[in-house]
Amino acid sequence: MDINIKTRLKDNPMNFEELVFKTRTYRRFDESFSVPQKTLRELVNLTRFSASGANRQPLKYLLYGNPSDCSRIFPSLAWAGYLKEWEGPEPGERPSAYIVILGDKSITDSFGVDHGIAAQTIMLGASTLGMGGCMIASIRKEELRTELNIPGQYEILLVLALGKPVEKVVIDDIKDGDVKYWRDDSQVHHVPKRSLDELILKL
Amino acid sequence: MDINIKTRLKDNPMNFEELVFKTRTYRRFDESFSVPQKTLRELVNLTRFSASGANRQPLKYLLYGNPSDCSRIFPSLAWAGYLKEWEGPEPGERPSAYIVILGDKSITDSFGVDHGIAAQTIMLGASTLGMGGCMIASIRKEELRTELNIPGQYEILLVLALGKPVEKVVIDDIKDGDVKYWRDDSQVHHVPKRSLDELILKL
Repeated sequence: MDINIKTRLKDNPMNFEELVFKTRTYRRFDESFSVPQKTLRELVNLTRFSASGANRQPLKYLLYGNPSDCSRIFPSLAWAGYLKEWEGPEPGERPSAYIVILGDKSITDSFGVDHGIAAQTIMLGASTLGMGGCMIASIRKEELRTELNIPGQYEILLVLALGKPVEKVVIDDIKDGDVKYWRDDSQVHHVPKRSLDELILKL
Repeated sequence: MDINIKTRLKDNPMNFEELVFKTRTYRRFDESFSVPQKTLRELVNLTRFSASGANRQPLKYLLYGNPSDCSRIFPSLAWAGYLKEWEGPEPGERPSAYIVILGDKSITDSFGVDHGIAAQTIMLGASTLGMGGCMIASIRKEELRTELNIPGQYEILLVLALGKPVEKVVIDDIKDGDVKYWRDDSQVHHVPKRSLDELILKL
């Protein structure tokens, strides 16, 4: 195997750094946009080639891309905990599709971080297509289970909301350790991020 | 925001699908290759722009790229559980660098899947550089904590082993539900993966 190694991300024409930077969490969408089922399947297909603890591959997926299904899922989700005045996206700005990530307990009871790996892979993939979305862990799970008739064999792990973003999201340097995102008067969504030096420990 | 939406991954010049496919789990490396500290920092920097539950950003990182540090970490790691006859890579084929992912309990006790998101982001980034590696959760944590003097404030979550891969890894269709990876007589590493139709539930 002859591999041409590069040491700086910017040296790579793929510019993965730009893709990661572009993959913001979005919560407001152009709801008139629709995500084809084939696209949702392609996004899930990416997860087949992503790491899985002990290669068990215990995750299962439910795909929803039509408006009537989406309206069944929306009420079970909690949106943007730090925006106390905001109950989530208005009609017209709601997600166009959802991917529900389940853990199949007939395979294992321990899903490790498989769903984090899968969710990030899907979100980066969606971003290459110009889409965006939100990983939602704050779910009224029993309500969603009933609404979607999800058998007890499956644990509800995450819901990925997807669509065509219509909000501007910017990253700010963190101030005084305050991690709360906020919206300014122009409805720009600000997300404070810790510095690299704060993340890398020197022991 | 005027976004040109694509619906098929293959329509994107970045070819993210190819990147994901190329990002295999590797366990044998050219140990003479060295990973600059700057590269490790760039990889961790990607995680600053990845999703974090409630934007808490509780992960911290330890970076090790020199041979003497690597030899301190290697003994605490368990390799390839399904390869019973193999105790891990021989000297000369061991990783050239490690990123230890910690959860800072002074920020939160619940790290959700932040470390899965971060690990996949780092591994995809490493892959764009021609590197490869392995996410390791099977760690003798107290041994590693002592060796690296990791304070009790930090939970050891994952170790990412990185280097220049020297093994061939292929993906096979799964047979009879057997997820165990294996090595053939030519030392090619085979990884059985479930089909897309098995992953997508229809309720």
